[in-house]
Amino acid sequence: MRTLQQPSPMPYHRYLPFQEQITVSLPDRTWPDQVIESPPRWCAVDLRDGNQALIDPMSPERKHRMFDLLVSMGYKEIEVGFPAASQTDFDFVRQLITQDRIPEDVYIQVLTQAREHLIERTFEAIEGAPRAIVHLYNSTSVLQREVVFRQDKDGIVDIATQGARLCRKYEEQMRSATEVVYQYSPESFTGTELEFAAHISDEVVDVFGATPEKKVIVNLPATVEMATPNVYADSIEWMHRNLRHRDSIILSLHPHNDRGTGVAAAELGYMAGADRIEGCLFGNGERTGNVDLITLGMNLFSQGVDPQIDFRDMDHIRRTVEHCNQMPVPERSPYGGDLVFTAFSGSHQDAIKKGFDHIERRAAEQDREVSDITWAVPYLPIDPKDIGRSYEAVIRVNSQSGKGGVAYLLKSEHGIELPRRAQVEFSQVIQRRAEDGGGEVSGEEIWQIFQDEYLPVDGDSRRWGHYRFGEVRTSSTAEGSFSMDLELQTNGSMVEHHAEANGPVAGLVDILSRDGVDVRVLDYTEHAMSQGGDAQAVAFVECAIGERVLWGVGIDHNTTAASLQAVVSAVNRAIRDTES
Amino acid sequence: MRTLQQPSPMPYHRYLPFQEQITVSLPDRTWPDQVIESPPRWCAVDLRDGNQALIDPMSPERKHRMFDLLVSMGYKEIEVGFPAASQTDFDFVRQLITQDRIPEDVYIQVLTQAREHLIERTFEAIEGAPRAIVHLYNSTSVLQREVVFRQDKDGIVDIATQGARLCRKYEEQMRSATEVVYQYSPESFTGTELEFAAHISDEVVDVFGATPEKKVIVNLPATVEMATPNVYADSIEWMHRNLRHRDSIILSLHPHNDRGTGVAAAELGYMAGADRIEGCLFGNGERTGNVDLITLGMNLFSQGVDPQIDFRDMDHIRRTVEHCNQMPVPERSPYGGDLVFTAFSGSHQDAIKKGFDHIERRAAEQDREVSDITWAVPYLPIDPKDIGRSYEAVIRVNSQSGKGGVAYLLKSEHGIELPRRAQVEFSQVIQRRAEDGGGEVSGEEIWQIFQDEYLPVDGDSRRWGHYRFGEVRTSSTAEGSFSMDLELQTNGSMVEHHAEANGPVAGLVDILSRDGVDVRVLDYTEHAMSQGGDAQAVAFVECAIGERVLWGVGIDHNTTAASLQAVVSAVNRAIRDTES
Repeated sequence: MRTLQQPSPMPYHRYLPFQEQITVSLPDRTWPDQVIESPPRWCAVDLRDGNQALIDPMSPERKHRMFDLLVSMGYKEIEVGFPAASQTDFDFVRQLITQDRIPEDVYIQVLTQAREHLIERTFEAIEGAPRAIVHLYNSTSVLQREVVFRQDKDGIVDIATQGARLCRKYEEQMRSATEVVYQYSPESFTGTELEFAAHISDEVVDVFGATPEKKVIVNLPATVEMATPNVYADSIEWMHRNLRHRDSIILSLHPHNDRGTGVAAAELGYMAGADRIEGCLFGNGERTGNVDLITLGMNLFSQGVDPQIDFRDMDHIRRTVEHCNQMPVPERSPYGGDLVFTAFSGSHQDAIKKGFDHIERRAAEQDREVSDITWAVPYLPIDPKDIGRSYEAVIRVNSQSGKGGVAYLLKSEHGIELPRRAQVEFSQVIQRRAEDGGGEVSGEEIWQIFQDEYLPVDGDSRRWGHYRFGEVRTSSTAEGSFSMDLELQTNGSMVEHHAEANGPVAGLVDILSRDGVDVRVLDYTEHAMSQGGDAQAVAFVECAIGERVLWGVGIDHNTTAASLQAVVSAVNRAIRDTES
Repeated sequence: MRTLQQPSPMPYHRYLPFQEQITVSLPDRTWPDQVIESPPRWCAVDLRDGNQALIDPMSPERKHRMFDLLVSMGYKEIEVGFPAASQTDFDFVRQLITQDRIPEDVYIQVLTQAREHLIERTFEAIEGAPRAIVHLYNSTSVLQREVVFRQDKDGIVDIATQGARLCRKYEEQMRSATEVVYQYSPESFTGTELEFAAHISDEVVDVFGATPEKKVIVNLPATVEMATPNVYADSIEWMHRNLRHRDSIILSLHPHNDRGTGVAAAELGYMAGADRIEGCLFGNGERTGNVDLITLGMNLFSQGVDPQIDFRDMDHIRRTVEHCNQMPVPERSPYGGDLVFTAFSGSHQDAIKKGFDHIERRAAEQDREVSDITWAVPYLPIDPKDIGRSYEAVIRVNSQSGKGGVAYLLKSEHGIELPRRAQVEFSQVIQRRAEDGGGEVSGEEIWQIFQDEYLPVDGDSRRWGHYRFGEVRTSSTAEGSFSMDLELQTNGSMVEHHAEANGPVAGLVDILSRDGVDVRVLDYTEHAMSQGGDAQAVAFVECAIGERVLWGVGIDHNTTAASLQAVVSAVNRAIRDTES
């Protein structure tokens, strides 16, 4: 076989390999023989490192949602901000404390640079907290020493130790009985000579007066990921062996993901002797992000190790994170992405089906529940049910012209952009129909199935479902109050309803709940179906109805009407299914 | 410091650790001492493994775009489909061949199961290609042998060797002078005992009659990622040492990303002795995806190693991939995501600025170009310019009420959802204004700056810019033809223009180009600004205007008018900047 690859025109000569910048040599490393059998101490930094990397930083409401989520999942160390650098961070920390929102068993963590007025302000911020980790950092890398600080090594050590002394001074002046723990980060650790990183950490740990009973956290950030993850692991094992007071230190990792290997760096670094890992849910954070706490925790779970974190409602976690960060979780994000428990290929679907059958058979033979049987299904690393999700076999339907699949057809021929999770749902609707009919489905049939499933049928209440609209009147005031009068036809008789809520969808949900339908709106999106002033709008809502999650669709020139119809579409679908 | 983490209610007892399923033991491993100094042989599987994992599989047009992109980047081995399993794949392969679209120096690769009618059909598909890799696979894992195939090891070996014999038979019957190379994958390799994986590969390689001159590719897929990436590396080094005809084999990796460590597995596996890596651009593929070829290639580049792939126009690559896959590239995807070269924190921005200054100073001292100086800037692993991108310092503006940032304000107070890249752009507009004014920017000022920058100003042509609309008339026929008459005011005089195009935006671009403005529309999105029938629409277009990329915004009750105004907004902004 010939080798045909050619040199590229890329200017690679501008870059110095890592090994020519920093020496990491540990031929007698032991970490590759380790296996992870217990979880690290976790620290979630979503409210600091994560928030700091959002174009649109979290509002107080979003911050509280994130804090409460992290607490409810079981995180006990939560970095909540950089209070001395930002008034909003300061105010948030004060709110947590004065409103008594920090459980007794949770450490809040606050970041500070090693400068006196910042340290003073940091201790002001944590006054009254039950427990707090004061996280002191300064940058130690060769590059930052030369370019940013223009100081020699001693100067950099002075910055750190002076900061540590100031911390102790301001701790002594605290009025509350706060348990203060110290953390030191030689920031840009991956660009720092190991001897110097150990030296500066040792000096700071000394000033903090660490003992085995009162440990100090030494946190080693891959501020920028600079080499393959085995090199980070070697550097961690080197530090683990060479730190002077190892028994008085909690060794912590803080990987970023510039080379796409943050999860690997965390896992190998933990095998190399670390005790603790800092990261963010779904890997939010500067640039390519911090290491992803979801993936790390669930990787442990998939190996039979208790992560000590509760991931049982992954969809709730994802929705909350998306709300707080105002950023979508990517479709292929491990464990939480929309597409990670789907199977598209026929051979995968077949193998998965046989795997499920096999587990059920074993459960029956042993007279046990399926959930008590060791998991073993091809292509599914875990049982999606364990995190509140489900396996989805997605059939892809090519139109006869070979022009593409379902989503493409709806978009190109009908101007409808189905949201990703609705695509997955609708594929399964088509799959059921295709199996009924046997064989390929044409573009026209797809559109017919879509209308049958989601849109009202003229006159035929039995096929469309329980509810149908009559007239809708809304009124709202400049002060933001809103009311709605709405005619709803049920079993042929039209009933007038009234609601006051913060908007039309909330009003309808309210009316439906009074009518005995338990519905919550989980997601909503709407768009114009074409260019031009005569465009119709299509609305999609994802609803939790009782135990189920379903999508509804509404189409109307009036965007409000479209959204209301979408809710009714979802509700009617749920009711139709229970009746059929 | 107390340890407060608690056991979780997760059912982790259902999972067997990897080391209790498969034994991988290699205490004398050598890969952790290796450093990568040359690129692997790459194989891009976007058109097969990637396409197979899309809800909406690629249309022929999208497949050709992807194939042409991969060729233009320098990939020489491209898996183009599973032609025996899918008529559309078969047709696509035939099109590539009969339309002479395969360069002489490119191997197309086709996948087939080890079944006679599929193999026969596969050879039909490649008839006439200059070079082809026939990729034979069967599943070899303990689990699939037991659950799916219900065969013992000998039965599984028979499937594979019989398939290999059939390949040779059908190769002999080919009429064209195609160079055929064989590839064998023991699928689900990571769940297979190493001895058995080596044995079955050896047997297949024997049947194929591999020699050092005519090598066979042995591809070891992490079909499902099952353990930390060092374990995959150990298993690769074990295979590398134990395969019988190593000198007649090209050892290939095919990592998936179930544990979020696909990139690490590929890098460590390559260090462990592999020659070749299969993956997809931006990590498309089943579930969590295949390993990401962009990250792998750029990781080499950042270490001064020529990836032998051209990544110089990363935005073009990303746009093409997004078009072909109909899936967005996540904001934090290494090297290609929208946010990976942004800096939000003041201390990062300051350090980056000092880094740039330092490089410029060194260039001046050495009398060389900045692009010839070794790259060393804090927080930026590479110079974004090397891949056609730019560094963006993003200031985040909190309104005085502390309710959140710019995007939040525009959304909550004005119903405008700014696209991510437009958010980055607008943040910089605000930054300039904030520096001019000095200090914090209020919500009202943000809205004023937004209007000033993007929206027409009544009467004042000097501030708004070069172009302004008059009347717009469009007409379209049922057959899809479209024409437009449009009044455009330039320097106070109104001129009537006519265009025939496939839509209004294309028509306007055509008119502007006749007026000497070089504009291409790169991205477009539009949404209703509120609920209700009286809603206005806001349109955003990202335009390349000459050398620059800018956003434009248009707001109107008429959605067509909004989109046209958005194009004019971008063009006027570009012209204003050159005039100021």
